[in-house]
Amino acid sequence: TLQHIFKEIFKAGLELQKDDHRKALLVSRKKKPENTIVDIKGEKIGDGSQYFVVGPCAVESYEQVAAVAAVAKSQGLKLLRGGAYKPRTSPYDFQGLGLEGLKILKRVADEYDMATISEIVNPADIEKAIDYIDVIQIGARNMQNFDLLKAAGQVNKPVLLKRGLAATLDEFINAAEYIISQGNGQIILCERGIRTYERATRNTLDISAVPILKQETHLPVMVDVTHSTGRRDLLIPCAKAALAIGADGVMAEVHPDPAVALSDSAQQMDFDQFNEYITQLKKLAAVKA
Amino acid sequence: TLQHIFKEIFKAGLELQKDDHRKALLVSRKKKPENTIVDIKGEKIGDGSQYFVVGPCAVESYEQVAAVAAVAKSQGLKLLRGGAYKPRTSPYDFQGLGLEGLKILKRVADEYDMATISEIVNPADIEKAIDYIDVIQIGARNMQNFDLLKAAGQVNKPVLLKRGLAATLDEFINAAEYIISQGNGQIILCERGIRTYERATRNTLDISAVPILKQETHLPVMVDVTHSTGRRDLLIPCAKAALAIGADGVMAEVHPDPAVALSDSAQQMDFDQFNEYITQLKKLAAVKA
Amino acid sequence: TLQHIFKEIFKAGLELQKDDHRKALLVSRKKKPENTIVDIKGEKIGDGSQYFVVGPCAVESYEQVAAVAAVAKSQGLKLLRGGAYKPRTSPYDFQGLGLEGLKILKRVADEYDMATISEIVNPADIEKAIDYIDVIQIGARNMQNFDLLKAAGQVNKPVLLKRGLAATLDEFINAAEYIISQGNGQIILCERGIRTYERATRNTLDISAVPILKQETHLPVMVDVTHSTGRRDLLIPCAKAALAIGADGVMAEVHPDPAVALSDSAQQMDFDQFNEYITQLKKLAAVKA
Amino acid sequence: TLQHIFKEIFKAGLELQKDDHRKALLVSRKKKPENTIVDIKGEKIGDGSQYFVVGPCAVESYEQVAAVAAVAKSQGLKLLRGGAYKPRTSPYDFQGLGLEGLKILKRVADEYDMATISEIVNPADIEKAIDYIDVIQIGARNMQNFDLLKAAGQVNKPVLLKRGLAATLDEFINAAEYIISQGNGQIILCERGIRTYERATRNTLDISAVPILKQETHLPVMVDVTHSTGRRDLLIPCAKAALAIGADGVMAEVHPDPAVALSDSAQQMDFDQFNEYITQLKKLAAVKA
Repeated sequence: TLQHIFKEIFKAGLELQKDDHRKALLVSRKKKPENTIVDIKGEKIGDGSQYFVVGPCAVESYEQVAAVAAVAKSQGLKLLRGGAYKPRTSPYDFQGLGLEGLKILKRVADEYDMATISEIVNPADIEKAIDYIDVIQIGARNMQNFDLLKAAGQVNKPVLLKRGLAATLDEFINAAEYIISQGNGQIILCERGIRTYERATRNTLDISAVPILKQETHLPVMVDVTHSTGRRDLLIPCAKAALAIGADGVMAEVHPDPAVALSDSAQQMDFDQFNEYITQLKKLAAVKA
Repeated sequence: TLQHIFKEIFKAGLELQKDDHRKALLVSRKKKPENTIVDIKGEKIGDGSQYFVVGPCAVESYEQVAAVAAVAKSQGLKLLRGGAYKPRTSPYDFQGLGLEGLKILKRVADEYDMATISEIVNPADIEKAIDYIDVIQIGARNMQNFDLLKAAGQVNKPVLLKRGLAATLDEFINAAEYIISQGNGQIILCERGIRTYERATRNTLDISAVPILKQETHLPVMVDVTHSTGRRDLLIPCAKAALAIGADGVMAEVHPDPAVALSDSAQQMDFDQFNEYITQLKKLAAVKA
Repeated sequence: TLQHIFKEIFKAGLELQKDDHRKALLVSRKKKPENTIVDIKGEKIGDGSQYFVVGPCAVESYEQVAAVAAVAKSQGLKLLRGGAYKPRTSPYDFQGLGLEGLKILKRVADEYDMATISEIVNPADIEKAIDYIDVIQIGARNMQNFDLLKAAGQVNKPVLLKRGLAATLDEFINAAEYIISQGNGQIILCERGIRTYERATRNTLDISAVPILKQETHLPVMVDVTHSTGRRDLLIPCAKAALAIGADGVMAEVHPDPAVALSDSAQQMDFDQFNEYITQLKKLAAVKA
Repeated sequence: TLQHIFKEIFKAGLELQKDDHRKALLVSRKKKPENTIVDIKGEKIGDGSQYFVVGPCAVESYEQVAAVAAVAKSQGLKLLRGGAYKPRTSPYDFQGLGLEGLKILKRVADEYDMATISEIVNPADIEKAIDYIDVIQIGARNMQNFDLLKAAGQVNKPVLLKRGLAATLDEFINAAEYIISQGNGQIILCERGIRTYERATRNTLDISAVPILKQETHLPVMVDVTHSTGRRDLLIPCAKAALAIGADGVMAEVHPDPAVALSDSAQQMDFDQFNEYITQLKKLAAVKA
């Protein structure tokens, strides 16, 4: 077994290298101890305050987006989300308004002085999209669409990167590394629930991912309470947990009339629910609103 | 397809019955809207305050348990856990002190005026055990050991029931129903992490289980932050999340010298860590300590 | 980092010990290279032939069991399963006939010269049960009911041990070690599907568990196609896969009239389906029937 | 509860519609009962014979690919895989030779009269790639890269679509529908293991997916034994199971010298192992080789 011991020492050496490699990641806190702050039109995500992102699942019309913007603005929020390129399980579901949707977002953002976040799914659309939006979202289904990550890394625009449906934290961190390795370090990580056997919620919110990601990386970390739970009745308690555990922000979907929404109708809040949501959460300590 | 419609109506009828059946569960909040309060030597779990349970993974000696009790008591805590019958993956691992361990717990509890919680794994041990402990714990591996559940339901002693390693919330609720259906309604549910693909933590803390269980049942709900994370560095943030989301209590393991513990050495807190833990958590609103 | 290298060497040493420990398990093939053969009234499970176990989910009456036995016997089978102590998610579901069920099994076994397999769930029932049945089954929910495993290890009777709902293979092997460490090495392992996110089947049949368990241990390995799939239409293809990959036997549920069965009505075969099942599988090479 | 019954009838109606919708999918066997046969240079996948696909994980050089082609050809195989665009967890791992890799594949295919399969990850590369390869592979990480699926649906070239890391069968079928809905029905589905809690294998081979996919769709179904297990020692038994359960083909990785491979070195077969693999599998009934 002396031979075996040598083999093990060799293996340990390999592990050591791997560990060093991880330390060497550009997103690693070992590489850069201080927090990265992502500035979105003056909102400084990662500065210790806690921010809210709200908006409809999908951009459906100017009127719909403007109505949400008005309500969000009246609560002091500045970050507006809305999907224009919608990844949908079935090809026969509403696929989003595409570039037209981005133009609506820009018009609303200009009128309400808000910043917009929207998902891009094709590397070829990045260049064009950044004229209209303030944050490029990369969705769960594209977390390992490496050409998309590289394209997002080559522009000077913040990126909100969502964790994959069943991605490990190690894979998630490496996906962020794809972006930063191309030169763009303005990255916000977003926990959005993982796929497990449990069926009471749409996904399982992995709340402990937040402190782990903040320990391992210097990037800000948000929590999407809508997609992690898929249940309107869990948005407030889960957002409280996210804020208590130290998330830099919380994301949730709001729609003027969820029942007729073209996607995710079961989980978006209406305006009354949104006002209740934001009122309860504003009481918590570090909230910026 | 008319025939098909009839079939569907029939199926809907069946679903309806099933739904009614769920409503009819004795643990259901639809059956009893007000919170159940479990009284453990004067600590009223479920009354709106938030409680702490601490103690070593396993009872190893009188000195060890007494040392933990002294520190816990000095922080104002009253609920002491400690394992005497230890379910271990390997038959060659330390299996606990058995009845001797329960006697140690009782001696310490008497001396420090604390209440004790300990896991029982064999229905035949219930009768004897209740002379020594204040709460019967039923562990994750035994959540569907139905004879054990029934035996616990036949005594007049609070039961702390842990969620199974990969139990759905529906199965968890039904396991509690096994206990209450035998006459004993003094049940505390305990989320302790579920088994998923993620390897950064020992299990994945399913934080959204807390509000769901509190909605669906009238029972108090605790969170075990030690077993859900398996990482000492995540205990404080996860406990904050648990308290923020509305858990009735938080459970964690404390050991005088974790490095030499006979089980779970990697995840128990030492006394300095415990004091830091309790100091930080006491600041939160509803904490009783 | 020299210090780090020493730490790693130390860790490697620990791993090495752990590895040696695994080799040292009594169930390990490293400990005993030749196959264990479990003799059940002359059927030699593990001898290279492939065997069938069939029977109803639950023993409901003498007539029901005898009807299944007659059909199975006419196909040349000898191993009859039937549940008397039924672990059910809800306390209000049929819980089995208990000892009465075991007596029915024995009467049928005597009349048809067959061997019987039935699940025991309480350590206190083992002694009594072995007068009536030929194989003690330990079910998925009790795979880590260590007192039950120990009790089964203290009698001289074959044990069929099912893999837990979400047990790793390492935990499964250690559960078998609990039995053998008490002196009883007549153990058959049974893969029965694991809990995953996929909902098309009741569980996910982990077919690769079969060659892994046969490599790692010297015990025979069966596959329960009924519980792993929960779908009658998948029994034949999955049984073919199990036989092709080298399982020592395949287990499936058969009921005279599945539609009125007191449990698992959606997945048991009726007699026509059973005859088709057995006819197709008998064509495969190593089948003993 | 009359109102409730009406609600349920309404819900049943919705379910019914959804069910009809599923029936209406172009990939559904209800839409087209007969098997789709995908013709790849004369190999007719889906015709009832069973085919092998082999090749290196990544194209590294002309010499490497030619060496594998020579050995595969000598065993009568015609389908050669090799990755040119490699999706890798870390941006610092070997990313593949890109277009240069496709050119090497084409040169080898021409010289050995074989057909080639290679993964494309960017919709913008599809047009160019189809000049060099015979089958477009869409990998697990891109199963819901919907723009890539649509692009693959717009060319006249067979597509091998792998199941996502944690995709449900329903999502997998809908991903295929994205391709066929654009006009390209030459689709081969490929089960490649799913992500579960089990760590003994890289993924868990969901063998029952094969009969389900063949029931639900008219498309041929292959099994990738390399990625599902991640273990060289499981390739033969898992391939036997795949063939026994009715897969139309089996895919595995072969490399002239796995130890120095630029990716997946732990799981590729060397030539001796490949010859043993193919020899054992050829004995099975429907194998075409």
